[in-house]
Formats: sequence, structure tokens, C-alpha cells
Amino acid sequence: MNTTPKVLAFDVFGTVVDWHGSIAAEVKRIGLDADPDAFATAWRDGYRPAMARVRSGELPWTKIDDLHRLILDDVLKEFEITHLTEAEKRHLNLVWHRLIPWDDTIAGLLRLKNQFTLVTLSNGNLGLLANMAKNAGLPWDLILSAEVFRHYKPDPETYLGVATIFDLAPEEVMLVAAHKDDLLSAGKCGLQTAFVERPLEFGKQMQRDDLAVEAFTTYHAKNFLDLADQLGC
Amino acid sequence: MNTTPKVLAFDVFGTVVDWHGSIAAEVKRIGLDADPDAFATAWRDGYRPAMARVRSGELPWTKIDDLHRLILDDVLKEFEITHLTEAEKRHLNLVWHRLIPWDDTIAGLLRLKNQFTLVTLSNGNLGLLANMAKNAGLPWDLILSAEVFRHYKPDPETYLGVATIFDLAPEEVMLVAAHKDDLLSAGKCGLQTAFVERPLEFGKQMQRDDLAVEAFTTYHAKNFLDLADQLGC
Repeated sequence: MNTTPKVLAFDVFGTVVDWHGSIAAEVKRIGLDADPDAFATAWRDGYRPAMARVRSGELPWTKIDDLHRLILDDVLKEFEITHLTEAEKRHLNLVWHRLIPWDDTIAGLLRLKNQFTLVTLSNGNLGLLANMAKNAGLPWDLILSAEVFRHYKPDPETYLGVATIFDLAPEEVMLVAAHKDDLLSAGKCGLQTAFVERPLEFGKQMQRDDLAVEAFTTYHAKNFLDLADQLGC
Repeated sequence: MNTTPKVLAFDVFGTVVDWHGSIAAEVKRIGLDADPDAFATAWRDGYRPAMARVRSGELPWTKIDDLHRLILDDVLKEFEITHLTEAEKRHLNLVWHRLIPWDDTIAGLLRLKNQFTLVTLSNGNLGLLANMAKNAGLPWDLILSAEVFRHYKPDPETYLGVATIFDLAPEEVMLVAAHKDDLLSAGKCGLQTAFVERPLEFGKQMQRDDLAVEAFTTYHAKNFLDLADQLGC
């Protein structure tokens, strides 16, 4: 029998919001001469290498807004898009503040919120996460970010930091994420874990095939409504 | 003509919630053999000196929950209260997580939230502020704390930190507070300021007599509803 968690900490990009669909829609909306799916994929592909440069110490602490912009400039070159003004590039870069939740997100969070304290645990910066929450109506009890801990996931300081902030044992916190590596790292720190299937995270053309149930997660849910069912909310 | 602020940053203790009334009520409720008003006053009186020890570097970074507990132990000695168990002391210390909002707080914040991004800027720690918000229904867009900046107010890092997080100029942020020294420090950093009268902050027996309009604040409001009126919300 597991301890009942008190705090649910949510990964955000891909778990709570549909980054791929939101960015592809924006690329289409503003009429960029690029395949919207390929553009979204290329932008996100730069994310881990950029964070790795911060985690290794090669770059000083740099927030995701600024990493997104560095990557965007490369992606625009790659797609040979040269006509955007600086203001247009700034606005496009902030599409990450306007990402759209999955269909079950809001209803699921509202049910879970009755029983648990809901926090973000995202590599996104605080301003990005706050603007996203206000824009999309995400009902967080507390927005936590790598920016608070000055460490990016999967550094242990992030997972254990949530427990410290609420004066809880690690097993009283559960990470909810659509990514097994994130959950594995949280589990190694003693947190409980819930995997949520997000088959369309990378778009319809690249449906995820890594959704199998794993022994190392505490829960495995189809979506947030299923998770609420399993947790008795 | 002032710039319209985009973010309103709220001081919390005394401005948003009634610490004195909440603590006095708790002292009465649990039947401590102490004058409730005097006990509340004594506990709060230890707050600034304790923070000053952190700000000067005499103490390492210490969160308010832990400072509150250090002060509580002194206050219990002063009032010769010796019968509380460790669990009872821990529960009493967390009364700061259960402070009650002023009557106009929630209605005022909900009106202001339609037009502005609402954040806390409090010396209270993140866990305290999140538990308080969940308990009282405070509709923050983002909870910010001295704990994020590793500086206590009135250090400039706190006021300017809010602007940096939202990538704004200082004058696009407005501090809302019931304390003139806090507003004066924020104003020196270039923030706009709104004073809110809280005549009963220190209880009915010690009504505040420092509520006069000052030239150095941008706005002066009776309460949050009056502030919402003045800001056209």
C-alpha cells in the first residue's frame, strides 16, 4: 500500500499542454513558409541540447525563454525564413506562453485539486508558466520551476526541492509526467510517479510508441480524468 | 499620466490577510493562558529582528516558517506557557498558513485579476503562501516570495525580481501594500505603488494612525474594492 501523496507535481510541456499542436497551428496562422509539423519538431529538438549546455556549466543559468529564442534563430535559418522583423520573432518566441492544454487537462486538474495540492515542476521559467496558466486557465496551487531551484530536471534538486518547499517526505510528492525518463529520475529521488499517455505529443505523423505500462511507475493513466478516477477524486 | 501597470505585486501579511485577528482567534480557540492580542503582537514583534539577522548575514538563509518557530519558542517562554507538546507547537506555528483574508480581499482580487496579473511579493515562504492561498481561496496568478530571490524585502532584488520574471520595466509593476516603508523601497526601485489602508492590522486596541495620503505613492485606496474602482476594473 502506497502512502497517499499530498502534492502532485506536474511536468508541463507535453503532459499538460500540447506544444506540438500549438506551435504547428501558430506557424500556419502566421503563414510561415515551412511545414508546420517539421518546424515544431525542429524547435523542440533544440531544447535538450540547449539545457544540457546549462546543466554541464558550459552556459551560465539561462531561462527557457532565452534558450527558446537561441533555438528559434537557428530554426529560422534552417528553414530559410528571413523576412520576420525582430518584433515578430519576439512574438513567435512567446508562443510557448500560449500553449493549449489537452482536452482533459482542465477538467482533470479541477477534480484532482479537491484532494491534492497541484504544482508545476517544469523546466519552463516562472513568467512563461504564469502567463500560460493565466491564458489557459490552469488552476495551479503553486507554480514551481527549474528557475526556483536553479537546476534543470532531471537534477535531483528539482524533485527533492518540491518536497522541501512543502516540508514533506519525498514519497508524499508524486510527479505526473508523460515522459518515462523524468519519472525514472523522480522515482530514484523517492517520489511517487504517475505516467500519463500522450500519444499525440509529437503530432499525428509521429505517434508515440513508448506508452507501455512500466513496473517502475506508481500509476499509469490514459489521461488526467483517468488519473483522477484512479486516485478516487 | 502613469504607465498602466501589467503586474500587481501584493504584500501579504497585513495587506491581504489579517494576521493579528487570525492569531488572536487561534490563541483563544486552543485555550492558551495568554491575552490573545498581546500574544499575537509579541509573535509579530519578533519578525523584523529575525529577518534583519538573515539580511545582515548573521544567520544563513532561513525561511519564515523556521523564523516563526524560533520566535514562538521565545514568546511561549515570555508568556510562561510550558504545557504544549511538540506536535501542538508545530500546529500552532502553522497558523501563519491559515491566516484569514480581510472582508474585501477575495472580491477585490477577483475584479483586479480580470485586468492585471496578480502575484504575491511576500517575505513568507512558498509553502506557507501556497497553503494559505489554497485554504483561503486567494486567486494568485503566481506566488512569488523572498524565497525565490533569496533576499528579504526591502532588498531591491525582491522588487526588481518581479519585473525581471515577467520581462517588464520596473514601472510596469505596481506594489500593493499596507506599509509605507515597503512602498517607499519599491518606489526607489522604479515600481509604481498603491497604499491600502488596513486600520485594524494591529488589532482594535492599537488602531493604526499612519494612514494619511503620501505624495510618494501612486495610488491610495481604502481597500481592494476601492483600488479596483480607481484602476477601472
